[in-house]
Parts: sequence; C-alpha cells; structure tokens
Amino acid sequence: MSRSRVVIVGAGFGGLACARALAGKPVDVLLLDRHNYHLFTPLLYQVASSLLNPSDIAYPIRAVFRRAANVRVRVAEVLGADFEERVVVTRKGKGEPGDGGNAAAAGHRIPYDYLVLASGSTNNFFGIRPVEEHALPLKDLPDAMALRNHVLTCFEAASRVSDEVARQSWLTFVLVGAGPTGVELAGAFSELIRLVLVKDFPELDMGKVRIVLVEGRDEVLPAFPRPLGADARLRLQRRNIEVRLSARVTDLSGDTITLSDGERITAKTLVWAAGVKPGDLAQTLALPATRSGRVQVDACLRVTGQERVFAIGDIAAVPYQGGEMPMLSAPAIQEGRYVARSILSLERAKPVEPFRYRDKGIMATIGRHAAVAQLGRLRFTGFVGWAMWLLVHLYFIIGFRNRIVVLVEWAWDYFRYDRPIRLIERARGLSSIV
Amino acid sequence: MSRSRVVIVGAGFGGLACARALAGKPVDVLLLDRHNYHLFTPLLYQVASSLLNPSDIAYPIRAVFRRAANVRVRVAEVLGADFEERVVVTRKGKGEPGDGGNAAAAGHRIPYDYLVLASGSTNNFFGIRPVEEHALPLKDLPDAMALRNHVLTCFEAASRVSDEVARQSWLTFVLVGAGPTGVELAGAFSELIRLVLVKDFPELDMGKVRIVLVEGRDEVLPAFPRPLGADARLRLQRRNIEVRLSARVTDLSGDTITLSDGERITAKTLVWAAGVKPGDLAQTLALPATRSGRVQVDACLRVTGQERVFAIGDIAAVPYQGGEMPMLSAPAIQEGRYVARSILSLERAKPVEPFRYRDKGIMATIGRHAAVAQLGRLRFTGFVGWAMWLLVHLYFIIGFRNRIVVLVEWAWDYFRYDRPIRLIERARGLSSIV
Repeated sequence: MSRSRVVIVGAGFGGLACARALAGKPVDVLLLDRHNYHLFTPLLYQVASSLLNPSDIAYPIRAVFRRAANVRVRVAEVLGADFEERVVVTRKGKGEPGDGGNAAAAGHRIPYDYLVLASGSTNNFFGIRPVEEHALPLKDLPDAMALRNHVLTCFEAASRVSDEVARQSWLTFVLVGAGPTGVELAGAFSELIRLVLVKDFPELDMGKVRIVLVEGRDEVLPAFPRPLGADARLRLQRRNIEVRLSARVTDLSGDTITLSDGERITAKTLVWAAGVKPGDLAQTLALPATRSGRVQVDACLRVTGQERVFAIGDIAAVPYQGGEMPMLSAPAIQEGRYVARSILSLERAKPVEPFRYRDKGIMATIGRHAAVAQLGRLRFTGFVGWAMWLLVHLYFIIGFRNRIVVLVEWAWDYFRYDRPIRLIERARGLSSIV
Repeated sequence: MSRSRVVIVGAGFGGLACARALAGKPVDVLLLDRHNYHLFTPLLYQVASSLLNPSDIAYPIRAVFRRAANVRVRVAEVLGADFEERVVVTRKGKGEPGDGGNAAAAGHRIPYDYLVLASGSTNNFFGIRPVEEHALPLKDLPDAMALRNHVLTCFEAASRVSDEVARQSWLTFVLVGAGPTGVELAGAFSELIRLVLVKDFPELDMGKVRIVLVEGRDEVLPAFPRPLGADARLRLQRRNIEVRLSARVTDLSGDTITLSDGERITAKTLVWAAGVKPGDLAQTLALPATRSGRVQVDACLRVTGQERVFAIGDIAAVPYQGGEMPMLSAPAIQEGRYVARSILSLERAKPVEPFRYRDKGIMATIGRHAAVAQLGRLRFTGFVGWAMWLLVHLYFIIGFRNRIVVLVEWAWDYFRYDRPIRLIERARGLSSIV
C-alpha cells in the first residue's frame, strides 16, 4: 500500500510547524511556498531598521527538511484545486511548456490525500486607494528592504536640500497602527536615528526628526492588557515619539497626510502597520469564507464541506472566545501541529479531538530596556520585560547559526551604538539616484 | 584664509583611499558617490554564490569618516562640470525644486579647489546587443544579488520540470571570461552546487550540472604568469568545470549560446565577466580621452589641460609599461593616496614627484585549498596560495566587525559545507514566481 500524500500550501508559521510535525512520520509531505525561505516575521522591523540582515530571519525551507526523507519542498504558487479529483494546481514557470496562461488547466497538477491550507495573510489598506499606492507596508522581506532603503534615503535627501520645509518633510515619519509592528518599528526607528544616524549626519539637526504613531483606538497595543498599553505609550513618548490616539489616516495627497481629526502632517514617509487580512486563497479555491474573508472551518480545522482539506493560521476562521482566532504566529503553530497529529490519527483510523488553543502570552518591545509582556497571569515591563523579549525571540529563531548571528548583531548594536547594515541597496533596473 | 576644498567623485578603491589620506588634514573634503556604501568588489562573487551577505562587503561611506570632521559625504550623481568656474554639477533628487530636468544647469552646483575623478568602470559587452540585454554581469551589488537569485531559481525550476532537455538548460551555466572574476565565480558555483545544493535537492542528479568557462585567449587568468594559469586550469578541470580556450561568444538567441568555434550550448544562464570599460564621465565632462575611453592624464595624474583636476583608477589612462595601467584595485588605491599627497604638497607650494606604481602582486582562488598567487618574485599555488588569499582578503576588508563576520561565514562554509544565505530575495514589484 502506498503512503498517503499530504500537500501543505504555505511555509509560514502554521505550514512549517505542520510539515515539521510530519517529518519522519509514515506519510509523504509536499510543502509549497512562493518563496524558498521561511520568514521569522516578528523581527522584520529589525531588518527595516538596519539592525539585521535578511538572512538572519529568512531560513531556506529546504534546509529545514534536509534530514527528512519524507518531506519535499517546491517553490510554487497555487492557482486552483479540484477537490473531487483531490488535486491542487500550481502555476508553471517561465520556460516550461504551457506557461503564460493563467488558466488552472495549464498548470502543474499535484495530487493529494490531505490538503493543508496555510497561505497566510496580506496587508489590509481598508480600501484607502492613495494609501495602498504610496504607503510602505511591513509584511514581507521585500517590504522590509524597501522600507530600510527608503528611510536611509530620506536622510541622504534631507542632507542635500537647503529648503527648510522640504527638509522637514524628509525628516518626518508617520507610522499608522500601534499594534506590536507599529510600536516596535517606532521604537527601532527612534534608536536608529538618535543613536546611529546622528553620528553619520553631523550636518543635520536630529532634534528636527519627528516620528508620529497614529492609532485608531484609544490606546497603543490595543490587544494587550490596558496597563501594559499605557506603559508602552509612556515609554514611546519619553523617546519623543508622538502618539496620536483615536485617529485614523483619511487621505494622502502628495506629501500631505490627513488625519480623521483634521490634522495635516507633511511627510515623505507613511508606514502602514494598521492591519492584515487573509490572502485571497479562499476566493481562488471558491471555499466558504466568513465575513472577514477567512476560510470556514469546523472544530477540527477541516474546511466546511471538505473531508480531507484543512485550513490553519491567518487564512482560517478558527472559532475562539465567541469570535475568530487572532492572526498571530502562536495559534498558527499550534494549529499546524494539531493538524499533523490529526492526519496521523486519521491514517490509523483513530478518533480526532477538537482543536484547543493554549494562550501562552503576548509581548512587544519599545527599545533598550523597554518592553511589555503578558505571560499567563504574569505581566512584565521595563528591563525585565525587555530581557524576556530577547530570550523568547532568540529561542524561536530557527537554526543555531542564526541564533548566534542575531545575538552578535544585537550585542554589537547594544554596546557600540552601531548598525553597519545601513545600506541603500537598490535592485537592478531601478533608478540609482533619489 | 579659508581652507581649500577637495571634491572627490566616486568612493571606490581610488576615491576612498584619497579621502582617507586627506582625513584630518588641513583641507575640506567632499566625497560623492551614487551609493551610500563602498563596495569591496573582490568578494562580490561570494555574494553571488550565497556565501556572504551584502553588508559583509558593502561598508557605509559615512561610517568610514565619522571621526574625520573635515570629510563630508554626499550621495549624488555627477551631471557636468564648469572647469572655468571650478564647479561640479550633481543631479537633484526627487522632491527637490528643479528636479526632473537633466540639464546640468538645473542641478546642485558644488564648488571645488581640487577635483579628483574616481568614478570607475562599468561592464563591457563589446557591443554584442543580445548579450548586453540577457547576460548576467557581476560588477556591482545589484548584479551579485540578481545572479544569486537567478542561480538558486535555476535549481528550483529544474526540480519542477519533467522534460529532460528543459531541465538540462536550467542546469547549464556558461561563464564568459576567465580572468579572476570568471575563475573565482566558476569555482564558487561548483562548490555551492556540489557541496551545498546537492543536499537541498535530492530529487536532482547533480552529475548533470555543467559549468562552462569560456575564454577568448589561450589560457585562463591571462594576466597571470603562464604557469599559474595552467595550474588554475587544471584545478578547474578537476572540479568538472569545462574550460573553453580561444573561444568567444558570438551570439545568444533564446537559450542558445553560440561560440566562435561553432559550438552551441543550451543554457538558461550566461554570466558575463569578460571585461570592463571606463564609465562615461570623460564624455559627460568633455575631457580628453584615450582610445580605451579613459581620461588622459600626465605623469602627476592631472587631467590633460587642467591644473586642478586629477583622474585616478579605472577612469584614468595612467601610462604604465608602454601601455595603460590595468584596471585593478591596487593601482587605484596607490593613485588615490598619491593624489592626496600631491594636493597637500600643492597647498604648501612644494614640488610634486611623478606617480610611480609599485606592483605588489596578483592572486585568484579556485576554491577550497586552491588558489594561485604572484607576490613579488614568489609564486604560490594550492593550499599555500589559498591560505595567503584568505589572509590578504581578510586584511583588506574594511572594519573590524566585517572581518570577524566574514571569517565566521567562511569557517561555517568550510567546516559545515553549508551556506545559509541561499535566499531567492525578490525586490518588491517584481513577479514572485519563476
């Protein structure tokens, strides 16, 4: 009897956890992703702020499964599926017979016995068109590199212009969304500028730099317990980061950003960290979705109406506390492991228990000696929270070498106030001048 | 009396050496470059072969001159000059009043007392249009990143296609030019594939991989003493690299590369390392040039007809041994230091000696335990040559930290046969699928 084949779509936190849990087990696994790397997204903001290299947080997927003979990896994009035939269809590449056409019929047909959908989420611009066109998001590696290049370019441009108004617009950074991404990025930019770039640009008055953090709700880190959000806000303000609560960006025209309270800010930089939404896989595969766009699943994470198709992570509407599971890495990882166990149980014709999420906590850092964390019933702030943040993140980085490298980069920055990765790296074909 | 102002165009080996030699001296220096980093080009091929990160060989220029109050840095592109007025003109950036127009009149006007032209060289495709359009060069950082992405993508594509002919074309790599760049890249690709990627792609037969090194002259490393070239050729061949001597690429059509001897090779990869030519600054500034396109200079490296304008490095036609100085880093560095000394002498109204080049040697590595080096009268090959190559290159890398990081990357690769930087990093806006 041939072994069952599990096809996993997406090598983010959920898909990777699922494939790892199936490594060495009596099934064949094919892991598909659009990239050849798994991305440790919680540290993306450190790539954007010149602290880490892309290779510190991006890990080649094939390297993860070198010793797992039953797990194969393929760089591919899913175009469709035939659930009757149990086949997923991926796009053909350049130079392959039958490429070019987007029709699912023209792609590679990959059979499965179990299908795990873990394709994740994408930026949510809430339909504000000028923001979608001109704001800088921070969701994947190209975003982080584009943001790093942009911020460094702003200082080069500011050092060249003689007009005061123009210079101020290059030195004003508006960040939208005070969730962990927005808060951590604001803190990281502040340190990059105050501690590192200040030595590079003696010709600039760094007192003129403005970092404005805009949040629609009435506190920063709204997903955190209220006292932790208040602590984070104080620490941000102590770093001269301007916090605008209960405010939204309503328009962007040229360099002028308009907030819902009527305030106008002239800035060359608008970073969008205001939220994510599920990718369009539910639509592509014509699967039942909730109002949020996430795939409907039952208590065992099976897609509604499908016996052998699971959905996990940001793409799945997993019921939780009367609503849907938050789009975070922790539930995605637990769901991935759970589905792996479920598949192995089904293979052995054993019963499957419903999925239960174990909330282990939440944390965010503002900078040196400053972080907030809720772990179980315990809350930490300041230096202790910061030390815990460092330990937890080092622990979750994949690979011994990357842990060491990241530790060295952090130590170098901590003791030397220096970030040598502040390169404006332009991709070939783009203009070489600001 | 105000201090004299030295404007240096280009922060490559020549321009950087000149600026460093003037740091702390009684002149004001402005160093211009199109990038915000100095690039250690001898190790570019290690970025292209997934061994080093861009930040290991690219060093922020401003960081070099943090402690030199008399050296300022500006990211800028030179559009023209007015030698009567002693002014160079740089392009204005986006968002600056008067941008958009390319006319020199619309740019920034930067006055100088001494002007040092050190803008370097660019790829020479010898007018073969299809090669210029489709070959992959290796001259700057975006080239190296594009090449890294391309090579890794070839293996992903090869692992997906079922057609044997198509697969072979993805697994065939043609490198043109057996100077140090071509030889070192061929050796590095060979190790990347045989030692690292072989573990990532158990589904591929790496015995099918072809690396073909094409050289127009009758020996590899033609600038080296003949026995060293012969030694390098043997070592390349022992690594299954096919060496084609006395052959040129005459045409490229689709995947078919035609050589001057009539041979046709079907390959998805054509790397162009067949030579460089001076950039077009001589033309832009209407300066007298030799037939090679390099700026005419006198024995003191002054541009013909100009009192206060110097040219150094690849852009300058420095007379040497009856011809012109080879386009290498060593002469550029010596010329940069020499011009710095000359300017200081002129400032003190002292006489200036003509420039004399001291040839310290030449070296190239083929891979583990294999390199060839000529240092003075001494020649080294094999393990000893390789060890010397490592030491010399570590010594010349800028910055303590980068030396350590590169040493760690090399050791990791050497002992673990692993290159964790094998990421296909796509810039934003490009297609995310092969």
